[in-house]
Amino acid sequence: MKVVKFGGSSLASGAQFQKVIEIINADPDRRVVVVSAPGKRNDADTKVTDLLIKYAKHPDRKTIVEEIWARYQEIADFFQVPAELLQPLKSELENLPQQNYSNSDFLLAAFKAHGEKINAQLLTIILQEQNKPAEFFDPEKSGLIVTNNPHDAHVLPQTYDRLADFQNPNKILVVPGFYGRSEDGEIATFSRGGSDITGAIMAKGLHADLYENFTDVDAVFAVNPQLVKNPIPIKLMTYRELRELSYTGFSVFHDEALIPTIEAQIPINVKNTNHPDLPGTLVVPEKDFKPQHTITGVASSKHFSALYLHRYMLNKEVGFTLKLLEIFYKYNISYEHMPSGIDDLTVIFDQNQFNGDLREQMCEEIRATLGPDRLEWIDDYAIIMVVGEGMRNKIGVLKRIVDPLAQANIGIHMINQGASRISIMLGTKQADASTAVKKIYQQFFESKE
Amino acid sequence: MKVVKFGGSSLASGAQFQKVIEIINADPDRRVVVVSAPGKRNDADTKVTDLLIKYAKHPDRKTIVEEIWARYQEIADFFQVPAELLQPLKSELENLPQQNYSNSDFLLAAFKAHGEKINAQLLTIILQEQNKPAEFFDPEKSGLIVTNNPHDAHVLPQTYDRLADFQNPNKILVVPGFYGRSEDGEIATFSRGGSDITGAIMAKGLHADLYENFTDVDAVFAVNPQLVKNPIPIKLMTYRELRELSYTGFSVFHDEALIPTIEAQIPINVKNTNHPDLPGTLVVPEKDFKPQHTITGVASSKHFSALYLHRYMLNKEVGFTLKLLEIFYKYNISYEHMPSGIDDLTVIFDQNQFNGDLREQMCEEIRATLGPDRLEWIDDYAIIMVVGEGMRNKIGVLKRIVDPLAQANIGIHMINQGASRISIMLGTKQADASTAVKKIYQQFFESKE
Repeated sequence: MKVVKFGGSSLASGAQFQKVIEIINADPDRRVVVVSAPGKRNDADTKVTDLLIKYAKHPDRKTIVEEIWARYQEIADFFQVPAELLQPLKSELENLPQQNYSNSDFLLAAFKAHGEKINAQLLTIILQEQNKPAEFFDPEKSGLIVTNNPHDAHVLPQTYDRLADFQNPNKILVVPGFYGRSEDGEIATFSRGGSDITGAIMAKGLHADLYENFTDVDAVFAVNPQLVKNPIPIKLMTYRELRELSYTGFSVFHDEALIPTIEAQIPINVKNTNHPDLPGTLVVPEKDFKPQHTITGVASSKHFSALYLHRYMLNKEVGFTLKLLEIFYKYNISYEHMPSGIDDLTVIFDQNQFNGDLREQMCEEIRATLGPDRLEWIDDYAIIMVVGEGMRNKIGVLKRIVDPLAQANIGIHMINQGASRISIMLGTKQADASTAVKKIYQQFFESKE
Repeated sequence: MKVVKFGGSSLASGAQFQKVIEIINADPDRRVVVVSAPGKRNDADTKVTDLLIKYAKHPDRKTIVEEIWARYQEIADFFQVPAELLQPLKSELENLPQQNYSNSDFLLAAFKAHGEKINAQLLTIILQEQNKPAEFFDPEKSGLIVTNNPHDAHVLPQTYDRLADFQNPNKILVVPGFYGRSEDGEIATFSRGGSDITGAIMAKGLHADLYENFTDVDAVFAVNPQLVKNPIPIKLMTYRELRELSYTGFSVFHDEALIPTIEAQIPINVKNTNHPDLPGTLVVPEKDFKPQHTITGVASSKHFSALYLHRYMLNKEVGFTLKLLEIFYKYNISYEHMPSGIDDLTVIFDQNQFNGDLREQMCEEIRATLGPDRLEWIDDYAIIMVVGEGMRNKIGVLKRIVDPLAQANIGIHMINQGASRISIMLGTKQADASTAVKKIYQQFFESKE
């Protein structure tokens, strides 16, 4: 049995719905279908989720409701769905402001979730009209139970007990992604892009053999196609590799969605709704993987800052780093990496955590508590990740990475290898990051090994 | 004014004493002389400090006292020192067991310190006999005040107030190294090799222009002479470089001795008592340094172990490393480095901290508290340090380091650059470490840049 998830662009219009239905029909194993809310039809378009957020803030503005409903109506018209079947969905949308919510956050969560909920109901109707045994799966009634965080909920273990009832469905279950029922009985959503998570939970809970994740790209590529023209698609990769690449912006698959699939060791197939014939990218457990290239992919991310600390005999003090981490903890700052020298420490942060005086306050406390000889803040920091199970224990990989960078006159501020055996992390100036990624890609994929 | 410190081998015999006296006489600026206890005269010899440790444990064994005194007598005979001048020193040695000590640790500290104390008094007598204006500087009376740790004391700030009285000495002060008076009035020693520390304290306290550290090697070398024949001597280096190289076994100068010299920004000249005409190695503040080579030195050390931890989403947990460090703190374990991946962490430890069940207990607690997906302990770990102010911001250094290692088929487990801008740290198997050091040395010092 396969769980199939379709992203927002795959369900943005009637024409896209048609492709989705053909994909479902093409394989009788596709018996659980997880849907997102309708996404953008073109660059100028607005996602239904964003319209719903507006609606939540201005529940009296009729034009917004009309704009939202028009999206669903367009799809329904494409399939000539009778008006009386649509009326309940339209009413549900219109009546959203009249429901009870414990606070404005749960109100917003419920509004957002209806992008998926209405879309799933609409797909169910269309399939049923075509005489398919489709059934709407209601996360609230069927027990997809999540924590009480309205916008960043996490699945709770009892969900999996409940899902056991749905194993081996002889129908096509159509599941709205992105949300569940909180412990207190209200709608709570996962973080943005969370339909991937719903798919993963369904795959685990129903013991799927495969989790197919349909999106609008042919595959995960070895490098960002905006940097390199026609990069090679990754045919096979491991969970770990996907995770490491996701870190620097390979955003094809939601981070948190990996966990349930890893726990259940279910392979993920990332495919393109618009080219379902292509093999896409298969993400598998480590044991099922044989590397085809030395590296699997390379990516960069530019939103980092670094804090440099120097103090003589720093590494003789058992408590130095501990005190430092306690300060980060107090300011609720998480750090990314912390390469250390003998008397030095560099701490790399996600830049987006700092606003206003927070950074200066934190640095001041570090100065007062730890008395470093030197404290420096560096804002121009990019991280490059070179990822590949194939480089494990392979000698000379590092040489092949740093050679082209030296030739391109790119300075390496930081290099961190040793923790993950399947990745090497480099720090460069932000202006050098894209060139560095290109050079590394060319070295491993365009030159002879 | 110069502070001159002589190591144990420089004062191991009458003949060596003669060289020391010639060095003192050669420069009227050498007005503070710090002495160690007599060291080994040959490989089979025993250091006086080690004999004193035996004496402290068996205070009734006359043969040990005789063996110790014989060392001083040999030196005195070389200079034909009259017996009546020696009698007080001999009595002081013989009467050591009769003094009061608050406990056996302070007893041992006092016994050990007398290796230096008697040697300094003996040198004073010899200089005076040669009509030099020498005077014994008594750390107990003159106020070299240290903490109450009998064997690992640290200098206290009031020492420097006291030392101000001794500025611009018009005599030659002969200072026994290695010990001071504890706050409670007893003798307490620095850690082993601590005469370097006394020299540094005197240099700072008396505002010396230069701290000359005489030992038995011509210079600090760019690589261990046991690995490479006739390596190039380092003529000029910075405090930081010395510190980084000391970390991996460049043991010419005591780690802690650097602090007072850095605080007072006094250059250190490491010289050879046996070839005082050679320039030796000058260690200077960063501002006085112009790099002559890209790297200054390379060294390795093999006594490391690594702990590898893997857990999905590890870097999303603000408190993960904090909890880990709290466990280390509880077990009083200090870590050396902690390179991190996205979902992994490697922690590198000094192997010598672990004995018996400690390691297993600690790992068990880490398992129970942090629940990693994987925990691995790796015992075969060597660290290589490549050090040089000259590689700061220089592009291509990393390439030149990893190139020869790849050619020699050496796997790099870990690489850590970024904290200290003047060093790159590599992890290899212990069996590969010496070859790696040799190859890196050859790359930077024997091939054309």
